[in-house]
Amino acid sequence: MAVVKEIVPFDQDKIYEKHRDLVHLDKWVEHYRSYAMEGRCAAYIPALAMANPSQLGIAMAGPDGVVLKSGECEASFTLQSISKVIGFIAACLDFGTPYVLDRVDVEPTGDAFNSIIRLEVHKPGRPFNPMINAGALTVASLLGGRAPLTKIESFLTLIEKMVGKRPSINEEVFQSEWRTAHRNRALAYYLKETGFLECTVEEALEVYLKQCSIEVNTQDVAMIGLILAYDGFHPIRKEQIFPKEVAKLTKALMVTCGMYNASGKFAAFIGLPAKSGVSGGIMAAVPAHAGSKKSPFPDGCGIGIYSPAIDEYGNSVAGSMLLKHIAREWDLNIF
Amino acid sequence: MAVVKEIVPFDQDKIYEKHRDLVHLDKWVEHYRSYAMEGRCAAYIPALAMANPSQLGIAMAGPDGVVLKSGECEASFTLQSISKVIGFIAACLDFGTPYVLDRVDVEPTGDAFNSIIRLEVHKPGRPFNPMINAGALTVASLLGGRAPLTKIESFLTLIEKMVGKRPSINEEVFQSEWRTAHRNRALAYYLKETGFLECTVEEALEVYLKQCSIEVNTQDVAMIGLILAYDGFHPIRKEQIFPKEVAKLTKALMVTCGMYNASGKFAAFIGLPAKSGVSGGIMAAVPAHAGSKKSPFPDGCGIGIYSPAIDEYGNSVAGSMLLKHIAREWDLNIF
Amino acid sequence: MAVVKEIVPFDQDKIYEKHRDLVHLDKWVEHYRSYAMEGRCAAYIPALAMANPSQLGIAMAGPDGVVLKSGECEASFTLQSISKVIGFIAACLDFGTPYVLDRVDVEPTGDAFNSIIRLEVHKPGRPFNPMINAGALTVASLLGGRAPLTKIESFLTLIEKMVGKRPSINEEVFQSEWRTAHRNRALAYYLKETGFLECTVEEALEVYLKQCSIEVNTQDVAMIGLILAYDGFHPIRKEQIFPKEVAKLTKALMVTCGMYNASGKFAAFIGLPAKSGVSGGIMAAVPAHAGSKKSPFPDGCGIGIYSPAIDEYGNSVAGSMLLKHIAREWDLNIF
Amino acid sequence: MAVVKEIVPFDQDKIYEKHRDLVHLDKWVEHYRSYAMEGRCAAYIPALAMANPSQLGIAMAGPDGVVLKSGECEASFTLQSISKVIGFIAACLDFGTPYVLDRVDVEPTGDAFNSIIRLEVHKPGRPFNPMINAGALTVASLLGGRAPLTKIESFLTLIEKMVGKRPSINEEVFQSEWRTAHRNRALAYYLKETGFLECTVEEALEVYLKQCSIEVNTQDVAMIGLILAYDGFHPIRKEQIFPKEVAKLTKALMVTCGMYNASGKFAAFIGLPAKSGVSGGIMAAVPAHAGSKKSPFPDGCGIGIYSPAIDEYGNSVAGSMLLKHIAREWDLNIF
Repeated sequence: MAVVKEIVPFDQDKIYEKHRDLVHLDKWVEHYRSYAMEGRCAAYIPALAMANPSQLGIAMAGPDGVVLKSGECEASFTLQSISKVIGFIAACLDFGTPYVLDRVDVEPTGDAFNSIIRLEVHKPGRPFNPMINAGALTVASLLGGRAPLTKIESFLTLIEKMVGKRPSINEEVFQSEWRTAHRNRALAYYLKETGFLECTVEEALEVYLKQCSIEVNTQDVAMIGLILAYDGFHPIRKEQIFPKEVAKLTKALMVTCGMYNASGKFAAFIGLPAKSGVSGGIMAAVPAHAGSKKSPFPDGCGIGIYSPAIDEYGNSVAGSMLLKHIAREWDLNIF
Repeated sequence: MAVVKEIVPFDQDKIYEKHRDLVHLDKWVEHYRSYAMEGRCAAYIPALAMANPSQLGIAMAGPDGVVLKSGECEASFTLQSISKVIGFIAACLDFGTPYVLDRVDVEPTGDAFNSIIRLEVHKPGRPFNPMINAGALTVASLLGGRAPLTKIESFLTLIEKMVGKRPSINEEVFQSEWRTAHRNRALAYYLKETGFLECTVEEALEVYLKQCSIEVNTQDVAMIGLILAYDGFHPIRKEQIFPKEVAKLTKALMVTCGMYNASGKFAAFIGLPAKSGVSGGIMAAVPAHAGSKKSPFPDGCGIGIYSPAIDEYGNSVAGSMLLKHIAREWDLNIF
Repeated sequence: MAVVKEIVPFDQDKIYEKHRDLVHLDKWVEHYRSYAMEGRCAAYIPALAMANPSQLGIAMAGPDGVVLKSGECEASFTLQSISKVIGFIAACLDFGTPYVLDRVDVEPTGDAFNSIIRLEVHKPGRPFNPMINAGALTVASLLGGRAPLTKIESFLTLIEKMVGKRPSINEEVFQSEWRTAHRNRALAYYLKETGFLECTVEEALEVYLKQCSIEVNTQDVAMIGLILAYDGFHPIRKEQIFPKEVAKLTKALMVTCGMYNASGKFAAFIGLPAKSGVSGGIMAAVPAHAGSKKSPFPDGCGIGIYSPAIDEYGNSVAGSMLLKHIAREWDLNIF
Repeated sequence: MAVVKEIVPFDQDKIYEKHRDLVHLDKWVEHYRSYAMEGRCAAYIPALAMANPSQLGIAMAGPDGVVLKSGECEASFTLQSISKVIGFIAACLDFGTPYVLDRVDVEPTGDAFNSIIRLEVHKPGRPFNPMINAGALTVASLLGGRAPLTKIESFLTLIEKMVGKRPSINEEVFQSEWRTAHRNRALAYYLKETGFLECTVEEALEVYLKQCSIEVNTQDVAMIGLILAYDGFHPIRKEQIFPKEVAKLTKALMVTCGMYNASGKFAAFIGLPAKSGVSGGIMAAVPAHAGSKKSPFPDGCGIGIYSPAIDEYGNSVAGSMLLKHIAREWDLNIF
């Protein structure tokens, strides 16, 4: 199953060099796959509940175009909360960081991703950060263009620039989420009342749930992680996709708030900017300076992981364990 | 006022090399000093209220022993919450990280440093992290040895190893805090009830308030920051003071929870592990990989800042602005 | 302006008897009218903001059909939260008290009427009581018949039985509330998610906002208060409108939760079951045993008050003061 | 076991009259005793944990001096939270109601009796009401005289005036509470910081825990309830012990906040001013106007109940059920 695939012109030597690393990766994937049983597929979105919980796949993309893959790395899954990272970047591109930060703060909360309490306690304050649902809805409402279709378009365009192909929206997942989005509607109406929604509730919700329903695989996610690692620069296409300042800020947000209310534990025990989604995806960015010679990617890399069984916080169980193991074994850590 | 001082044997060249940087630093210090007026000295501890709010000093300590200083860098101040970092490290040294983490979590909260709410809402959970008062009191109660004197001794010994001299406790500040520590006593009794205090309330409080009252200057703080930057290794004395794992974990905690409930903004806009105290001190660590050639310390450094006028969160106003300016100008950022 | 009006066949003597009391009432109304300036008309519902804040009117209805009136007693106003009492009674009539109480608790909260926090903290618990918006929305969703029109019909029918005429819905107020009901929609979607809404959000909201928009005057409200005072029995028409148990329970709810988060102060300083609305209406019930010989209604009465300028809690300023004065002077108190 | 005992000169006829009622009472006590198994004796105060959970006793004291008793009515128990009622009255007697209400509000909370959250959320507000621990500690700190001994003396004197004998303090219970009062100390230190404690923490705590440790039996409690029912007037000794206004206010507080966070359910389903303690005691007041001809006390009465097994809220399980049954059967209800 494990493969090394190049995006740039083929170079046989690189594959041999990576062979040893692949052997490790395959072994680790097989080992941690068994821990998936300790989690459960997200039940509140019916379409997600049907995923095969024993899947575990990973892709690691280096700046030279080499991609290391193992396990169910080709499986399709929806971005879910990983899309919050992209939405935040898109909004900063559209309106500039100060405009966005006037409407959403950047403080971690310790609360669950769908918590509404702080909106009332700190009323009429901004949502605490763009990585919780309240903040992500505010960000979705900002996106350029008035109509949901235009907003989601700017979303798809940004992803296309990063992963090299236009992603599609999983209509089944979107419909499933749309019908059961009571809590998100509650959050959106609350934000509407306090003035932190710049379009209608239904429009914000359509954008947010469509961005959550964008279909990717681990390599797509790894590519986005790689560009974040390189401060917005696409190291293969040699193109600055978004400004360095936005990238630094986004990675800081991923560290402080990216892994739901287990973000502190991720920072402490893994030490990489990462963002998870309830579909079981994890995106991580290993900046060049945090790469190590022990690893197959001494100049940093992006990491995409998928394993749909999630824990009480909403993070992939086997995915988190695999990422922790890799970070420790290969000495990847920004701190 | 600005001086370059060496700790290791004198080397005239280094001073000349740094001259240009010093000119910058002096200019910045003078510029940001005026912003101190926007803050106020901590009023709830009478002895702190008497500080001169217009003071601003900085020391930056490099791995080669060079220390760059500017402003009121020699002023004495008490560690206050910066001591929480040292207490956490001391407890990990005494009992091992797993033992400590069984008693205190590592999640940011978004709440004020002296908040008690979460102890009840998440009862009977651990305090959320060791950088808020509740968690720091639990950590103080763990420290080796039964008697407060023994506990505080292990504290002083650790600092001595790092800064090269035994610090003293400011008795006046300690007495002032002791008499007005009603909120901390409330926290400590709450922790006692929920089983997260391993000594008496009065003992834990004595240790905690004494550690807060340890007197330092900016160079001392910069040295501790430097050792954190070097993962527990003292680059001048060539000695591992505490394990790399503890250092990584501590820096992660500083990023997610170190600057009170403005930690998210610090991570987003400064991007360095840092810890502040209500006396107006800030300690920051610039790991070797986060140093930049633009800066006088391409191999990383430790930073100690002092300016006693603090903002609504408890962070030094001028100190935070100076640190942000330095990080931006010299491109220091872990993300 | 002050009049004594009979509902039952005219009896000249009664009017004379009451003359002394009317003189008092007129004086008190004039006195407390000036305090209305300390409040403001509810601003969040545009149609309410246009009311004349200096109005103050009262009607007191006795079991013998005598009604004592003073001030702007004929002014029309919408029920707003007073309708929560009627909704609760209607639901108990439709489904029985146990069914209703399985879906809404009867505990006071100390929180604002539109608070959402407790729904999350005590999730997945019932709304705390039917006198806060969350509970009232749950109750509205229970009402008999599937369609909003049927639900609101059972509402209008119950009021008609009590006041002797079919009330109308103020369409302008309803439309105004419907367009600005973001917070109530947030509450309703939250309830939908936790399973405490037995119809769609839009249906529940239509019923709730229409019941809030029912137009009444002080005499109508006094009649409903009188029937509550008489444990569900209409003392003039000699008909049991709803069971005694429901009436007792409802009056208990009015005492513990009826006056928003000033209910405790109302119980303490006035001592009568009462319910207010943000339109400035107050309904109070004086049970026969709580009537006193000092008062014109020794056998109890119902009280309807209207004065649209409300305080920070949502209660009519002048109305509350007038009620307190009456209760004290005429020794009306259930405790 | 059941007896009828007079306090005033003996009158054989009265006993015969009550015989039928006693037969009922005995039957009900035996019936509800079995439900005590669903509760548990308070475990957090070691001395209370040793009580016999199957005990259930009741005394009902009428204005004519007749006392109806059944079950373990002679058992001694400590007042615990019932003392909060007496402390509030004593403080109002010492300083006047306005002074006391400036320092403690009268709003129900829906929170547990020992909750600390609201002190922070509504900081720097008064404790929400004198029936929760925070408010009771504030009240204890107000009591006349500086020293704890003087404060507790004014407490004992007030009880002596009501029950006709000087009660004693159970030193074993007091010592047991004193040693384990961590949560109460946390509350007291919090109040000290916010300025709502008018003596030292240790003094307030000594007074509060001693008032909790006052030993009574059901007849004592029934007598206090009777005097509350009679608005502060001792109907047997024909003496006004405290003003009517204080009595009305206290009964309102008992209804809205007296039964911990089940107060709403008590008001709704029982409908009598009542106050419970974690020792398993309940005091209820049936005002003259709420007495009924169905009951042995048509002119009202006081009720004292004891059954030490308590529920999750802190209320006696069997005691609450017995009180509810009595109120329903004998039609006692203030609403």
